[in-house]
Amino acid sequence: MSVDLELAPKHKRPAGEACCQPLVFPEVSSETATRLAQVAKALGDPVRVQLIDVLRRHAGKVCVCELQPLFEISQPTLSHHLKKLRDAGLVDCERRGLWAYYYVLPDAVDELSVWLT
Amino acid sequence: MSVDLELAPKHKRPAGEACCQPLVFPEVSSETATRLAQVAKALGDPVRVQLIDVLRRHAGKVCVCELQPLFEISQPTLSHHLKKLRDAGLVDCERRGLWAYYYVLPDAVDELSVWLT
Repeated sequence: MSVDLELAPKHKRPAGEACCQPLVFPEVSSETATRLAQVAKALGDPVRVQLIDVLRRHAGKVCVCELQPLFEISQPTLSHHLKKLRDAGLVDCERRGLWAYYYVLPDAVDELSVWLT
Repeated sequence: MSVDLELAPKHKRPAGEACCQPLVFPEVSSETATRLAQVAKALGDPVRVQLIDVLRRHAGKVCVCELQPLFEISQPTLSHHLKKLRDAGLVDCERRGLWAYYYVLPDAVDELSVWLT
């Protein structure tokens, strides 16, 4: 029995070229992914998670002065966390006299929640 | 008519003391909040959101070589993102020969999802 030893020469794959065609694709667009990531990033701190937790149950009724004693952080640090949440569209606030009352904006939280489920 | 003008002296509240007793408390413990924040932080990047999106639909079947062409990022950057997801307990991988196959660990994602809902 003769064996054909004449094999095709090996071709080295150019760097960066995939070994196979991708069969999978993300279903979220990169715009949606950017929005979801922004919300997730804002939640990427335990204090901010607890702030959202409190505000969701007492929307529009929580004065900053009530949030302060819940955490062992300074007032400027609390303000920084609330600003991060506001910038990401997770919360907003209403000023009444000297105090600001915070509430959760449900849309941003809901979009992340729906995507995760 | 006489008016009693003898008013009680004003007391300046010491700095850091709350103007009122807090009536609200977070329901998530700080341990849970730390875990949720870690997961959220890992999702705080659009590429990582899209990676999770792909992996959730093709658990255990996605080779790193298939993920690479989906994003306009270098291989080391992709590895960095996958490491962040692995460190946060969101994904794990199985090596088969030369390639690593990634899959989502549902517990971490579920905990965040349940809290958000």
